[in-house]
Amino acid sequence: MKASQFLISTLKEAPADAEVVSHQLMMRAGMVKKLGAGIYTWMPMGLRVVRKVEQIVREEMNRAGAVELLMPVVQPAEYWQETGRWSKMGPELMRVKDRHDRDFIIQPTSEEVVTDVARQELRSYKQLPRNLYHIQTKFRDERRPRFGVMRSREFIMKDAYSFDRDAASAKASYEVMAKAYRAAFDRFGLRYRAVAADSGAIGGDLSEEFQVIAATGEDAVVYCPDSQYAANIEKAEALAPAGPRPAAAQKMEKTPTPGKSTCADVAQFLSLPLQRTVKSLVLATDQVDDEGNPKGTQVWLLLLRGDHDMNEIKVGKVPGLDVGFRFATVAEIVDHFGTPPGYLGPIGLKKPVKVVADREVAAMADWVCGANDEGFHLTGVNWGRDLPEPDAVADLRNVVEGDLSPDGKGRLAIERGIEIGHIFYLGTKYSAPMQATFLDETGKPQLMEMGCYGIGITRLPAAAIEQNNDARGIIWPDAIAPFTVVLCPIGMDRSEEVKAAAQKLHDDLAAAGVDVMLDDRGERPGAMFADWELIGVPHRVVISDRGLKEGQLEYQHRRDAAATKVPAGEVFAFLRGRLQA
Amino acid sequence: MKASQFLISTLKEAPADAEVVSHQLMMRAGMVKKLGAGIYTWMPMGLRVVRKVEQIVREEMNRAGAVELLMPVVQPAEYWQETGRWSKMGPELMRVKDRHDRDFIIQPTSEEVVTDVARQELRSYKQLPRNLYHIQTKFRDERRPRFGVMRSREFIMKDAYSFDRDAASAKASYEVMAKAYRAAFDRFGLRYRAVAADSGAIGGDLSEEFQVIAATGEDAVVYCPDSQYAANIEKAEALAPAGPRPAAAQKMEKTPTPGKSTCADVAQFLSLPLQRTVKSLVLATDQVDDEGNPKGTQVWLLLLRGDHDMNEIKVGKVPGLDVGFRFATVAEIVDHFGTPPGYLGPIGLKKPVKVVADREVAAMADWVCGANDEGFHLTGVNWGRDLPEPDAVADLRNVVEGDLSPDGKGRLAIERGIEIGHIFYLGTKYSAPMQATFLDETGKPQLMEMGCYGIGITRLPAAAIEQNNDARGIIWPDAIAPFTVVLCPIGMDRSEEVKAAAQKLHDDLAAAGVDVMLDDRGERPGAMFADWELIGVPHRVVISDRGLKEGQLEYQHRRDAAATKVPAGEVFAFLRGRLQA
Repeated sequence: MKASQFLISTLKEAPADAEVVSHQLMMRAGMVKKLGAGIYTWMPMGLRVVRKVEQIVREEMNRAGAVELLMPVVQPAEYWQETGRWSKMGPELMRVKDRHDRDFIIQPTSEEVVTDVARQELRSYKQLPRNLYHIQTKFRDERRPRFGVMRSREFIMKDAYSFDRDAASAKASYEVMAKAYRAAFDRFGLRYRAVAADSGAIGGDLSEEFQVIAATGEDAVVYCPDSQYAANIEKAEALAPAGPRPAAAQKMEKTPTPGKSTCADVAQFLSLPLQRTVKSLVLATDQVDDEGNPKGTQVWLLLLRGDHDMNEIKVGKVPGLDVGFRFATVAEIVDHFGTPPGYLGPIGLKKPVKVVADREVAAMADWVCGANDEGFHLTGVNWGRDLPEPDAVADLRNVVEGDLSPDGKGRLAIERGIEIGHIFYLGTKYSAPMQATFLDETGKPQLMEMGCYGIGITRLPAAAIEQNNDARGIIWPDAIAPFTVVLCPIGMDRSEEVKAAAQKLHDDLAAAGVDVMLDDRGERPGAMFADWELIGVPHRVVISDRGLKEGQLEYQHRRDAAATKVPAGEVFAFLRGRLQA
Repeated sequence: MKASQFLISTLKEAPADAEVVSHQLMMRAGMVKKLGAGIYTWMPMGLRVVRKVEQIVREEMNRAGAVELLMPVVQPAEYWQETGRWSKMGPELMRVKDRHDRDFIIQPTSEEVVTDVARQELRSYKQLPRNLYHIQTKFRDERRPRFGVMRSREFIMKDAYSFDRDAASAKASYEVMAKAYRAAFDRFGLRYRAVAADSGAIGGDLSEEFQVIAATGEDAVVYCPDSQYAANIEKAEALAPAGPRPAAAQKMEKTPTPGKSTCADVAQFLSLPLQRTVKSLVLATDQVDDEGNPKGTQVWLLLLRGDHDMNEIKVGKVPGLDVGFRFATVAEIVDHFGTPPGYLGPIGLKKPVKVVADREVAAMADWVCGANDEGFHLTGVNWGRDLPEPDAVADLRNVVEGDLSPDGKGRLAIERGIEIGHIFYLGTKYSAPMQATFLDETGKPQLMEMGCYGIGITRLPAAAIEQNNDARGIIWPDAIAPFTVVLCPIGMDRSEEVKAAAQKLHDDLAAAGVDVMLDDRGERPGAMFADWELIGVPHRVVISDRGLKEGQLEYQHRRDAAATKVPAGEVFAFLRGRLQA
C-alpha cells in the first residue's frame, strides 16, 4: 500500500472530549472519527486493526469447531418478550418501531435469536454439542458513552453460543472456548490475564474474564505472582486469617470521639492503626409473601474492618441477603440503632438486627466500633465477652494487595485491566423460557445447556493502545498493527535511487505477504516520522540517498531508542527476522 | 471442512410465503432463516456465499484504488436534516429515538456520513480524487418485504463514494468504478449486463445498472444483439420511425364503439390492428408562484400508440412536465374534454390542453382515437388536416422488442434482469447542501463532485440462484459456491479404505486452498446426493468401496447428466483442471 492511495489523517491535538489516552491517540492517529455521542466511523487506518482482530478471532473460533453465522442487527421484540428481557432491560436496550408500529430492538446481544435457531435446527442429541458464533454490530444506549470506542454505543462483538445435552458436556464446551480464547489473546500480542469471574445466579466456577492489562483499566484484576491464581475483584476470595482469634487484652470502654464519624478519623484521633477499627454497614431485605405482597423488612448489620471495602457480589451471596438487598433508610437505622448513621455499632441496639461479620472481623480482638451514641465509640471490644458471636461469618470484602492467595500458594497482587472477553456458562437460563429442547436417546425432550462467549472486537484496539503507548503515540503489536512495516523514503522526489529502492523493498515485502506501507506523500522526514510514530506502526525502514551511498538502510522498531544500520542487500532478510510470527 | 462439524439443514418443502425460486431454494438449502418480516439470519451455509461475494467486491474495490472504512449503522438525524432527506424520505427510512429523545436513523445508505467525512478530511485539491467505500448492514423499512433476501428490510451493501475536483475528474472516477464493477461481476461467474440507466435530475449519461440476467427478474433489460447497446427500460430510447409520415388515405369518421373504451377492444371491434389506435393519457401540472402558492393547473394530453406503454421517466423530461406531473382528476378531465375517461381524444375539446404526441404517433396517418363522446371513436384521423400538429413530439414510451436500436446497429431485444449494482454520478447533490468543499490551487473553496456506487452483497446470492437452478436445487458458480467441491464417501463407516481415501483427498484439496466439504454424516447415498444437489455445490466426487476396488472415483459437475470415472490417482489433478480460476 502506498500512502498516496490511502487516507492518512493525523492531528496535533486530541479533541477536548477525549479523556483517556487510547481515545486521544485514536483520534489523533485518524483511526476513528466521531459521528455522534458514542457513535464512531472506523476510518481506513483503524478499520485495518479491527479486521485483523476479527480475523484472529474468526480463525480461533473456527479452529475450536465453532460455526459462523450472521444474526440480524434489528430483531423483533417477540423473541425478547419470550425470555422477559424486553421488560427487564432498561433504557440501554434501543427500541424501535417499524412503519406498522411493531416493536423491534437494535441488538445488544443475541441469546434470544441464537436460541431460536437452536430450537429449530438442533433437534437430536446427535447434533450436539454445537457452537454458533457471529461477528456483528451491536448497540447499547449507554447513559453516558465515553472513552471513545471503549464505551461506545455502537460497537462490534464476536458472540459465540454453545449448546450441549447436559451440564458435563457444557462444561467441556466451555473449556474448549477457554482454550480458544487463550489462543486468540496470545495471538493479539497483548499482556492479558484470564481471570475467574462471578457467574451470578447460575453459580459454579464457569465464568472467566479476559482482561487486557493496563494501568488505566477500569477493572481490578487480582492475581498471585507465585501461582496461576487470577480473578476479578468481585470474585477473588478473601480467606479467613490463619490461626485462632487472639484473646481479649483490653476492657471495653466508651470513648468520646466528637465529630469523628469515619474509621479513618477515629483511628487517627485515638492513635490506633486503622486495622483495629470496624465499620458498620446497615442493609435491609424486604420480605414478600407467596402472593408477592410485602410482609416486613429484615435489617442487617455488616461488620468490616475499617480499611476494607464491601464487595456487593459477595454480600449478595450471604444466605438471607441473596434475595436482593438494599441499604437501610435513615429511619430504619434510627429505629434499630437509636441513632442516625455515623456512630453505629453492634452493641446496645434498640431492636435486634442480624449481624454478619466479615471473616477478618470475626477473628479480631480488642476492636473499635461506634457506640450507637453520637460522638462516641467503643474501644477494646471483644466477641463473646461484650457481644454475642455474630449470626453469620462470611467473606464480605474486596481483597487487598498482600492478602493470602485462595490457592494457598502466596500472597495476592492487584493490577488494572480492561475487559475484552468474557466466557460464561449459562445453563438453561435462555433454553428454559424459550423451550429449546432436543430429543435424547430415548426420544424424550431435554432442555439444552448453553454457554455464551464474547469478545469486544472494536474495544480491543483501544485496550491495546492503553497498554502500549508512549509520548509519541501508539505502539502496535505486530499482529494487529494497521501496517506491520512502514517505509520512509527521504527525498524520493529528488532521487531516483531512493525511489527505486523504496519501491523494490515495498514490492518484495508485499509479495512476501507483509503488510507494508510506503509513505510516498513527500512529507519532510520530521513530519513523516512523527505521523508513523503516532500511528504506531511497529517496524520502520528509512531509505535515504546518503544511506544508499553507504549501501545501508536504517531500521528502527517503534520501541527502539535509535536506528540500526542494515546493509541494503540484507534488509529484507533482516526484516523477516524481526517480524513476529 | 467436515459436515459433522458444520450446520447442514435442508428441508423437503419451502415455506408457503416463499414466492420465488431463489427464496424457496435458499430456505430449503438452509442458507437463510427468517427471523421476522424481511429480516433473515444468514445461516452458516449462506454466510459462506455472502463472504465470498464480499471478498470479490473488496478485492476489486481495493484494486481500483478505493479505500475501505466503516460508517455506523445508527446515524444521528442531524446529518440527514442537512441534506433535507430527513423530511423528504418516507416511512422506508427507519427512525429511532435514543434514551435522551434524540433522533437517529438506521442507515439505508451513507451519502450524508461520507460527505461529512470528506468535508473534514479532504481539504485540498492534492487529496483528490478519493474513493471511500464500506460494506455495511442497511435497513429499509419496505412496506411489503418479500422474495426473501431479494427485497428484505435488513441487508448488506457495498457502497463506494467518489470525491473529485471537477466534473471531468468525476467522470474519470466513474469510469474507474465502471471497470471495477465489470471485473467484479465477471468474477462472480454470473451472466449479467451493464445497462445504461436514467441519471435523474443530474442528467448526463453517467448511470449504469448491473443486472444479473434471470427470466424471473423484476427489471426489463433492453439490448441490441448486434451491438454493445444496453439500457434499462426506463432509459432505452425509442427512435422516431424512419421515413416521412404517410399521406392521409381515409377521411375522418365518427364511429359508434359502444362499451369499447380500451384500444384493444376498439381495434378488435373495428377489425383493425392495435397499431392503428391511439390512446389518450391526461396529465396535469400544478403551477406555483415565486412564494410557492398555487396559481393554476395546466392539463396535458399525451398520445401513445395503442400497443405502447407510457414511460414515466421519459414523460418527466418533457419541457413543462419536468416540474412534476400527476394524472388529471376526473373533474379536470370532464372540464376539458366534456366527457369522463374512456373515449378521450385530441379533437373537439371544451377547453384547450397541451398535446404531446409520442414520436410514433406523430408519424401516423389514418389513426383511431376517442371522440370525446361516450361510446364513440374517430377513425381516419390525420394530423394537420383534422387537428393541428401537436404542441410537442417526444419519446414517451417504453421500447418494445424489434424497435430500432438507438445506436442504429440493429433491432432491440428485451430480457429480464435483477439489479445487483448501480453506479451513479451525483454531481454536487450532497456536497452543495453539506458544503463539502476543498481548496483549489488558488486557495479558493470549491464544491466536490461526487459519485456513488452500490452492490447488493446479500441480494447477489438470490440473483445467482434465480439464474442458476434446476428441479434439484441450486447450481452455484465456483467463485461464490459455499463449498467448491463436496466429497461423498459411501459406506465410510464400514470401509476403512473409503474413509482413508476420502480423508486424504479432503486434506490434499484443503491444503491446495480448495474449499472442500467432506460429508461424513453417514447419510444414505440418495439423501446425501439430494442434499448437495439442493445446496448446489458445483463439483462432487463419490468415493465408494466398489470404485476403489477398480481404482476409480466418480466425478460429477452439478450440471453434468452423469458421472465420469476418474482413476483414483489422477483425481486431484483432474479436479484442479475442472475448477474455474
